[in-house]
Amino acid sequence: MQKSFSPARPCREEDVTYWDIETDVAIVGFGAAGSCAAIEARQAGAEVAVFEVAAAAGGSAALSGGEVYVGGSGGTSVQRAAGFEDSTEDFYKYLMMSGGPGADAARVRAYADNAEAHFRWLQEQGVPYKGTFLPGKWLEPHTDDTLVWSGSEQAWPFSGEAKPAPRGHTAQQEGWSAGRILMEKLCGRAEALGASIHYNARALALVLARDGSVVGLAVRIDGTPRYVRVRRGVILASGGFIANREMLSRYAPGALACETQVSAGNDDGSGIRMGIGAGAAAIHMDQFFATLPYFPPDSLVKGIFVNERGERFINEDAYHGRIAHYVLRQPNGKAWLLVDDEIFGRPMIHRDMTIAAVGETWGEVEAELGLVAGTLEHTVETFNREAAEGRDPGFHKAAAWLRPLTKAPFAALSYCRGDVPGHAFTLGGLATDTDGTVLDADGNAIRGLYAAGRCACGLPRWGEGYSSGMSLGDSTFFGRQAGRHAAGR
Amino acid sequence: MQKSFSPARPCREEDVTYWDIETDVAIVGFGAAGSCAAIEARQAGAEVAVFEVAAAAGGSAALSGGEVYVGGSGGTSVQRAAGFEDSTEDFYKYLMMSGGPGADAARVRAYADNAEAHFRWLQEQGVPYKGTFLPGKWLEPHTDDTLVWSGSEQAWPFSGEAKPAPRGHTAQQEGWSAGRILMEKLCGRAEALGASIHYNARALALVLARDGSVVGLAVRIDGTPRYVRVRRGVILASGGFIANREMLSRYAPGALACETQVSAGNDDGSGIRMGIGAGAAAIHMDQFFATLPYFPPDSLVKGIFVNERGERFINEDAYHGRIAHYVLRQPNGKAWLLVDDEIFGRPMIHRDMTIAAVGETWGEVEAELGLVAGTLEHTVETFNREAAEGRDPGFHKAAAWLRPLTKAPFAALSYCRGDVPGHAFTLGGLATDTDGTVLDADGNAIRGLYAAGRCACGLPRWGEGYSSGMSLGDSTFFGRQAGRHAAGR
Repeated sequence: MQKSFSPARPCREEDVTYWDIETDVAIVGFGAAGSCAAIEARQAGAEVAVFEVAAAAGGSAALSGGEVYVGGSGGTSVQRAAGFEDSTEDFYKYLMMSGGPGADAARVRAYADNAEAHFRWLQEQGVPYKGTFLPGKWLEPHTDDTLVWSGSEQAWPFSGEAKPAPRGHTAQQEGWSAGRILMEKLCGRAEALGASIHYNARALALVLARDGSVVGLAVRIDGTPRYVRVRRGVILASGGFIANREMLSRYAPGALACETQVSAGNDDGSGIRMGIGAGAAAIHMDQFFATLPYFPPDSLVKGIFVNERGERFINEDAYHGRIAHYVLRQPNGKAWLLVDDEIFGRPMIHRDMTIAAVGETWGEVEAELGLVAGTLEHTVETFNREAAEGRDPGFHKAAAWLRPLTKAPFAALSYCRGDVPGHAFTLGGLATDTDGTVLDADGNAIRGLYAAGRCACGLPRWGEGYSSGMSLGDSTFFGRQAGRHAAGR
Repeated sequence: MQKSFSPARPCREEDVTYWDIETDVAIVGFGAAGSCAAIEARQAGAEVAVFEVAAAAGGSAALSGGEVYVGGSGGTSVQRAAGFEDSTEDFYKYLMMSGGPGADAARVRAYADNAEAHFRWLQEQGVPYKGTFLPGKWLEPHTDDTLVWSGSEQAWPFSGEAKPAPRGHTAQQEGWSAGRILMEKLCGRAEALGASIHYNARALALVLARDGSVVGLAVRIDGTPRYVRVRRGVILASGGFIANREMLSRYAPGALACETQVSAGNDDGSGIRMGIGAGAAAIHMDQFFATLPYFPPDSLVKGIFVNERGERFINEDAYHGRIAHYVLRQPNGKAWLLVDDEIFGRPMIHRDMTIAAVGETWGEVEAELGLVAGTLEHTVETFNREAAEGRDPGFHKAAAWLRPLTKAPFAALSYCRGDVPGHAFTLGGLATDTDGTVLDADGNAIRGLYAAGRCACGLPRWGEGYSSGMSLGDSTFFGRQAGRHAAGR
């Protein structure tokens, strides 16, 4: 047995003298992607062993809002019950816009065509959905309702290209973090189907045959390295790399501005590094989800963001993660949300946030912020005049959120760097085809290797286009694809 | 002999039945990095074979401006003769800022400490430098002068952090494209020192030993695949991937907005793919140099850029490549340079550029551009008022370039997407240490593999921070490092 392992350095099959475990399919990580991969692989008749580094199931998904972004095919049962039709083409268009300049049309097509069926599948696995719609603008439901608006569907420029529909579907659980119930059900189902789960099991390195195909895995279980031989394939489902600062500085330095990792702590990029070590391409590694949650209450959406030049820079009704990317890139990391007395309310998250300036006039606020005289005043005057007419020609904020900011006192809530922690996770990862097969830098398959979830670069691959539920929707759907295809190899 | 090759899929040493060529060091690419690597490797006593896919020497560098960005150590002989002192620390600070959030301090340190000596080395290789300073603001010298301001040294935010000095050093040649003489000299020197050069030789794949180290290369010469055994190492110096649209869409989709490749045509990313196939990490792959050359004449720098909201977005005296990145990200790809009659002149590059609007008042220009009434007018009024006072509090353009735009007629020159071709090359590439050794995803060395030039991720790794001469400075300096270290292995 090898003394030391490095994820990026695969072991050679010929150096393995003894296989401790043999299985058809080995899965690294028991979160959203890993559990769904396990379910499908078992149902396809494969022997499945899952290796999870934590002591418990669920991965980072268990700490999440538990929302999946699904629609199309005319609408899910929940969308239709709430009166929303959702054509596959509108869904497809929105997903393509969300994917940004590097959107993967084949992946989007596979998902748009099958997401409604995927939602039924999640229900069949026992994930509870109340089936109700929660109107308004929320980060995620704080109730046990199912359906919410969870992206930029109703906001410019998305609203003009694809007919909006709410698509965030959340498992039934009171309060936030419905990811717990989602993952309980999916992981429980995988276990019930006979997947063998190893906890406290750290994947150390892949094992490669002489032809470059993946034939196994080294794993540390109970402190001891073990070799796992796979007859069909290894599925990397071990998450992204938000918890690895060294990887962030090499690949996604922009994310270093966000202090809070959206992670259960094990998103150390080791799966991505194992893939790279096997010759895989890692793509869109600079991209990340970010948020500076500035609502609810949604009255705050009627405020306007300005930068240190006193200028607006975004339609404030866009998805909060899109806004966060715009805030993070303002000069010197300075941005404030301007509110008047009528719309002010303490943000539900970060209630102790910094009120950088208060005044009886916008000129006082401008002066207190130290901005150039007249800049902020001009911006607010222009906004107020146009908002009173129900229009926002510069930024295209929807009329429903337009209201002049005229009721003193006025305030500037600080979203300057350091005042509110940014929350982030990574979107870049291993290149895969729609079956989950990992691809090398020429786009050819690496035999025996699959990836899904944030270990792969999936549907969400552009921070500015993200919508809540896209990562879990992608992880669960493409996790299934990987499980089915690995089992069928 | 293998029938087909794929760059990302290395050959196995045990499958090579016959080595057609044996050498100490094999170099892929005979451009800036490859020629300098060859010189150093030969001087260290190594047998060197260079494989160049083109029919002639020089690579993309031969078509370039031939400028190297050097300074520090108190100043090069040319800087000092022109009266510029340039401390290593100021040079270091500027390079660190230029590297952006992912700057590599070790690489910057190595370069800042040694760039002045590197310039002397270039002279020793026979590269001619007239030794004269050309004042003003140029893309590159159109004369045979040596030294120009070639970056954002005198512009905010750089000027406040590091004492400015001109650092673009261009080989002596009348007219633009001094890269020809630079590469003639460097490639000639490598040949004179006895490097064996194979033209029309396409590298097909690396050859890996069973322990993962690089021991050779498959190359197509005269239509026939040949195996090259290396006793010490392979140096990948085959350029970036601006000529490979599929790689751009996977790694740097932002660069797809630029129609013109800054390339001799062979920057197809094959070297990067070979490295990835050997388990290398490729980093900052999203980053690229871009320019929309809008001057000379430098009177145009006194104009102001506005977007479709009629707002400014950058200090126009920054490096043209930095400005291009800001232009490219404006909403809907819309941006115009506003000029008055006094500063107007046809840009030397793209003389036939689109004049999108002309008017006797700024209101007429605003209307002709179809902007919201009052937006552009307000911006120009503010700018003019502040420029008359010699200040630019919003964007910090230096006083030398501030002048109210008050002499009718007024015009808007179009830098909207499609109206002016963007010029681009890629900055992301293989991760290396300061010796040029290629690193895997855990940061460990891949034995026998080196990379330099745009095949590697070097000093310039942030599009917004690029300055002319950084890529050639990096390629020649770190090419030398790779050559010396490969030879000494």
